[in-house]
Amino acid sequence: MSRAISQKRQDTPSLQPLLDMLAEPMAAVNETIIARLHSDVPLIPELGGHLIAAGGKRMRPLLTLAGAHLAGADADGMAKAVKLATAVEFIHSATLLHDDVIDESSLRRGRDTANALWGNDASVLVGDFLFARSFELMVETGNIGVLGRLSAAAARITEGEIKQMAITGAPDTPLSDYMDVITGKTAILFAAAAAAGAEVASGSETDVAVMHDYGMTLGLAFQIMDDALDYAAVAEDTGKNAGDDFSDQKITMPTIIAWQNADDEEKAFWQRTLGEADFAEGDLARAQAILERHDAIGQSLAAAREHATSASQMIIAHCDTGPKVDIGAALAEAAAFAAARSR
Amino acid sequence: MSRAISQKRQDTPSLQPLLDMLAEPMAAVNETIIARLHSDVPLIPELGGHLIAAGGKRMRPLLTLAGAHLAGADADGMAKAVKLATAVEFIHSATLLHDDVIDESSLRRGRDTANALWGNDASVLVGDFLFARSFELMVETGNIGVLGRLSAAAARITEGEIKQMAITGAPDTPLSDYMDVITGKTAILFAAAAAAGAEVASGSETDVAVMHDYGMTLGLAFQIMDDALDYAAVAEDTGKNAGDDFSDQKITMPTIIAWQNADDEEKAFWQRTLGEADFAEGDLARAQAILERHDAIGQSLAAAREHATSASQMIIAHCDTGPKVDIGAALAEAAAFAAARSR
Repeated sequence: MSRAISQKRQDTPSLQPLLDMLAEPMAAVNETIIARLHSDVPLIPELGGHLIAAGGKRMRPLLTLAGAHLAGADADGMAKAVKLATAVEFIHSATLLHDDVIDESSLRRGRDTANALWGNDASVLVGDFLFARSFELMVETGNIGVLGRLSAAAARITEGEIKQMAITGAPDTPLSDYMDVITGKTAILFAAAAAAGAEVASGSETDVAVMHDYGMTLGLAFQIMDDALDYAAVAEDTGKNAGDDFSDQKITMPTIIAWQNADDEEKAFWQRTLGEADFAEGDLARAQAILERHDAIGQSLAAAREHATSASQMIIAHCDTGPKVDIGAALAEAAAFAAARSR
Repeated sequence: MSRAISQKRQDTPSLQPLLDMLAEPMAAVNETIIARLHSDVPLIPELGGHLIAAGGKRMRPLLTLAGAHLAGADADGMAKAVKLATAVEFIHSATLLHDDVIDESSLRRGRDTANALWGNDASVLVGDFLFARSFELMVETGNIGVLGRLSAAAARITEGEIKQMAITGAPDTPLSDYMDVITGKTAILFAAAAAAGAEVASGSETDVAVMHDYGMTLGLAFQIMDDALDYAAVAEDTGKNAGDDFSDQKITMPTIIAWQNADDEEKAFWQRTLGEADFAEGDLARAQAILERHDAIGQSLAAAREHATSASQMIIAHCDTGPKVDIGAALAEAAAFAAARSR
């Protein structure tokens, strides 16, 4: 590793302290993922493994383990949290598989998408399998409370995705609708994952409530960041196609800010592109220039940082003394990471 | 109603005795379906309602209620069974929505399919919503046993669907692979639905086991019948497009029987059509003529009747005396109905 990169890592908030603290149960999660992808239908571990082995940050299962740790989990509680964390990763993976079918995406995490390799049919069905398997894992914890929490989250995720479809192609979408969409499609699962970890480990009501709110706020930061990066991105940085959201007519915080500040000519541009999918050569560059003119990316990044700061503050306030200080600090840094990452 | 039809109804096995016996909880299921389709996302009740309101026989929820009745459910047990029956119908509806996306079907239950009307994206997402909502309903019963049973069934359903994809286009598929496919994609849910009803109503282990085996055997009869009818069908009778399975290259009991009895010329025909999707005008009629020559539909119908008879016999043996006689007789007739229906 070059000195410059090493230097940068030290200055930049990182997931590493949390990963170090939870290395052992996280290894168990990775083993459980492999074990529970097993099926006598070879396509399931092949396709599921292609997606899940590609990695991703595993932030959601990490939050489940962190919730259990914060709640002072004993060995049994942590073993249950490992199952729940696997279930959470499976739910997330199922939504990714279905999203890629819906968006007709061909690249995710720097690799061809499952639907591009195996076809939409396989992606729909393996997504369904992962979803069903996630419930089997939850059932094994015997905890009806976390089952309720995560099944309600799963319903809210699909509502969020459908609401996203509804605002697609509508550049005049108000910011509140966007926040509602990302609450459902992203933040709810962060919140439920974090709270379920504390709950399954018999945490106090306050532990559960704080992890829920922390996860929710971090999730919002994470998604706002993701959407801002989409316009800044080049494929090799993000593992996604650059400008995907633009060509998919997705309405995100940057375009909403740009619309609210647009003159008539710019409004006509957004209406033609995002509104009517009438794209011409150079439109993405023009979109990026307009976003730059109104500091729409900068304002979005600032909003992500604000949410991250709020998440950090609430977790530190909850963990200010005693045995929770270390996990609190690691979670606070994880929140900062969510709004500081470049991918 | 004409005299001839009325006469026919009396001679033909019917779901009516079971429907009459369970009219009250079945009305509650229909109300619960409407209530739990509710979402602040209007597309969900619209699209879900389009599919579910179109009806279908509601055999799966009926089996859940029948299981509870057979187990001697009290009011609380039957209220829980109503929630489970709704969950079962939601799981079934979710798989139908996803199936129609996968098969690119345009007609189901005599109506345009949801994917034809609202697009594949909406069908995938509303299917996901129904699946998640079904787990919320199960959680409300507080019964971890039925949650395990139905989540395992959901995973097996998708495995069955994937196995079906794997044998698609392979006319030399052995009958055992076909039976494995329909066990997963159809019979497992009948079995789990029936057993879960008995379990949630605190039925004996034997009640639960018998309902499971009865549901499984009836489910096999039901699917074999469905596949046989596909070749006999015209759209107005079945509410589906005639010959769908043929053009989709699906391998079902009639084509397996025909392949096993085929001469070289017929094998070449099946290979060109089912195997390579190289269809020409008149191929469906020729397929039907070949099936007729080998009595492949007749043999399939006989296999369906055999399973139905087996289901009837096992439920009557279990219910031979005391308060279970009536529900046993109604369930026996329902099994016969599954192999005698014309749609």
